[in-house]
Amino acid sequence: MIRTKIKSALHSSQPGENIKVSGWVRTRRDSKSGFSFVELNDGSCMANLQIVIDQSVPDYDTLIKDVTTGASISVTGKVNESPGKNQRIELHAESFYLYGTADADSYPLQKKRHSFEFLREIAHLRPRTNTFGAITRVRNEAAYAIHRFFQSRGFIYIQTPIITTSDCEGAGEMFQVTTLNLERLAQVQTEIDFSQDFFGKPASLTVSGQLEAEIFATSLGECYTFGPTFRAENSNTSRHLAEFWMIEPEMPFYDLEDNMALAESFVRTVIGDVLQNCPEDMEFFNQRIDQTTIEKLRNITDNEFIRISYTEAIEILKSSGKQFDFPIEWGSDMQSEHERFLTEEHFKQPVIVYNYPRTIKPFYMRCNDDNKTVCAMDVLVPGVGEIIGGSQREERYDILVDRMQEGGLVPDEYWWYTDLRKYGTVPHSGFGLGFERLIQLMTSMTNIRDCIPFPRTPKNAEF
Amino acid sequence: MIRTKIKSALHSSQPGENIKVSGWVRTRRDSKSGFSFVELNDGSCMANLQIVIDQSVPDYDTLIKDVTTGASISVTGKVNESPGKNQRIELHAESFYLYGTADADSYPLQKKRHSFEFLREIAHLRPRTNTFGAITRVRNEAAYAIHRFFQSRGFIYIQTPIITTSDCEGAGEMFQVTTLNLERLAQVQTEIDFSQDFFGKPASLTVSGQLEAEIFATSLGECYTFGPTFRAENSNTSRHLAEFWMIEPEMPFYDLEDNMALAESFVRTVIGDVLQNCPEDMEFFNQRIDQTTIEKLRNITDNEFIRISYTEAIEILKSSGKQFDFPIEWGSDMQSEHERFLTEEHFKQPVIVYNYPRTIKPFYMRCNDDNKTVCAMDVLVPGVGEIIGGSQREERYDILVDRMQEGGLVPDEYWWYTDLRKYGTVPHSGFGLGFERLIQLMTSMTNIRDCIPFPRTPKNAEF
Repeated sequence: MIRTKIKSALHSSQPGENIKVSGWVRTRRDSKSGFSFVELNDGSCMANLQIVIDQSVPDYDTLIKDVTTGASISVTGKVNESPGKNQRIELHAESFYLYGTADADSYPLQKKRHSFEFLREIAHLRPRTNTFGAITRVRNEAAYAIHRFFQSRGFIYIQTPIITTSDCEGAGEMFQVTTLNLERLAQVQTEIDFSQDFFGKPASLTVSGQLEAEIFATSLGECYTFGPTFRAENSNTSRHLAEFWMIEPEMPFYDLEDNMALAESFVRTVIGDVLQNCPEDMEFFNQRIDQTTIEKLRNITDNEFIRISYTEAIEILKSSGKQFDFPIEWGSDMQSEHERFLTEEHFKQPVIVYNYPRTIKPFYMRCNDDNKTVCAMDVLVPGVGEIIGGSQREERYDILVDRMQEGGLVPDEYWWYTDLRKYGTVPHSGFGLGFERLIQLMTSMTNIRDCIPFPRTPKNAEF
Repeated sequence: MIRTKIKSALHSSQPGENIKVSGWVRTRRDSKSGFSFVELNDGSCMANLQIVIDQSVPDYDTLIKDVTTGASISVTGKVNESPGKNQRIELHAESFYLYGTADADSYPLQKKRHSFEFLREIAHLRPRTNTFGAITRVRNEAAYAIHRFFQSRGFIYIQTPIITTSDCEGAGEMFQVTTLNLERLAQVQTEIDFSQDFFGKPASLTVSGQLEAEIFATSLGECYTFGPTFRAENSNTSRHLAEFWMIEPEMPFYDLEDNMALAESFVRTVIGDVLQNCPEDMEFFNQRIDQTTIEKLRNITDNEFIRISYTEAIEILKSSGKQFDFPIEWGSDMQSEHERFLTEEHFKQPVIVYNYPRTIKPFYMRCNDDNKTVCAMDVLVPGVGEIIGGSQREERYDILVDRMQEGGLVPDEYWWYTDLRKYGTVPHSGFGLGFERLIQLMTSMTNIRDCIPFPRTPKNAEF
């Protein structure tokens, strides 16, 4: 018989139907009158299917004791209306098959609360918990919603390189990639010879696909990346990962206004899709992780984003009377506390801050005519602060080269990037969104390490 | 005025409409009677829009000379029926704006044929050519078709780690990832101390997400990866990249039969979607790259795949009378020439070969009862040979551990992988597809370096 997924059974199976389900046992309760209740989960949804196996079912006597938490079984039987009020239906087993046991003494995921720290140590089993099942399904829905958003608007998905010999921000601590024999390199005193390395020169892991995305935006139209990026920062915070996924759209003929409009529409659409398509999982986060989760997300989907210039933002912060750990003045970078004050306390809704001082922003952002600010924009939302950073790009060759030199970069090393301004340059804009930050926002998980299947952080690349 | 994309203009704009288009000039021809024809492309489709700019248009006299190949302009004007037979409509300019020039003496992409080798050296400009525009659009459509295929079947998209301390195949040359100061390491004679490295131990770039995907398949159901993978092989062939994207679905409760059925459906659906949704680009490959392209792809979408065992395949090869460079015997790995003979000459259609000798396959493939073969399968298609490799996975703990030891692996290093067999093990299967090989198949491009935006190969990580 074809396997029915539990999500489908719970939604559509009717009393009287014969079905087969397969999955992992969450709990088993034995009644004194010769039957057992099994809660079975197969990952297709949060809810378990309740299964009744009575002693007349073949192998009940010999096998039921091994149908413990974590064991894998398949069950064939008849769907009945459930007398319990927690579920519409239940399955009355006619036969069952035990694929694999899970020794109750050693299986780490017994029915009790486990700390997220502990679950990180068994990241290979944590998808079997309610929380990580829900995170994984929400992550999947968000990823697909992102593709739908861009594809429906004619954007082209491009894969920018992971191994690179450029550095987008001109800064950022990068992982080196090499095939040199490091042990031998250490043992023999010598000068390093990168011509012997795989790529013939020093190579590292990308921190952003933006510069390469600009190549496609200025030839084929709106495009976006969705791929892994890396930071070799020794940051042990709840908001940093050494490896994370980024979405970076890049659009020709978009100015900063167009860019802000797209970013707003993007955030609202993706969150709206997840709320609509993962109601059960989102309800779980709202009940178990943070009871303001759905309200916080509805605040984002239901309100137009406030737009204020950096200069206005500084005025608000200075006249707020609020004591900040980092004092703020025009010209200084906003810290998380400032961003969160603006979006959480002052406006109490999403805010886009634009036109930042040029001295605190990278070379590729377009200079405004005031010569003091650049066409940058950050999207701030209650709960996490900055979720998107973007800008209109500097499309004027001379100004771009000046800005590179100002920042200590060697324009020749970016010959292909400056070429885009030499040959048929056009105004263009783009932004970046850290995928795990978005998942953190949507799930209310405190630690970003729980928002990616296998987190990479200092001293940790297990699994 | 809102910009109309050229694809939309060519398909839907009606004579009499006023529109604005923006893009890059492919060619300009000046007539003697005071007007110019401009072919404009914006990447939204292969075709250009023909624009007529006459000398009454403001700035014509001063600017038209700079409207050269590669220059970027926007044009506002009225749509007219075209008297030419190559296009339905043309645009009569009322005004135009020159964003950026492209100096005719230095712009490398003048109107002429360029070799693909040369275009690889200017990979930042090659998306402006017909060929690379078409490849990029087909790549985008294939990527989205892959997501649609899996999402519509309830598969979960997961992102497996890029930086890893495991090695899926137990072999394969891997890139090392480090933050150690290599120059200092070379200069001072010492023992290497990986505890000082970012992850506290040697780390490398993943060669496959399969093992981690199995974690999700055996907890949450059908899933798939779609991400970059790496091989540090010194292969300078037209079929190898050091960095490439892989799709790796993994399915619980699937045996080898189910796995083959899914792989067949996957290949046929994705190729069928691209044929249907990119007709203009596919026609281009069929006319300009290889005139058998569409016929070759229709052969895949329209025929059920032949299924034969490895043993049958060897018999066919041995009795073929064909002289192979590598002689073939039961027990030896098939070479590309054998695979291509089977699919291109013998069957002349796609073939799935299954049940390979255990000695030539990795530890994770399920052993058959004959003790000689494993539940492996390779999908072979005319034109490229092997396009998919997969297997039913060994779900039995003891046999898996034996197989690891047989292959010289230390099971303890795979503790989390073997744990999946200890706790609620289930039969499961999966396969892998190299995305660029698929693109190569669909576009008929000879060199795989032309099937990815920025190829990484030995001595080359430019852009």
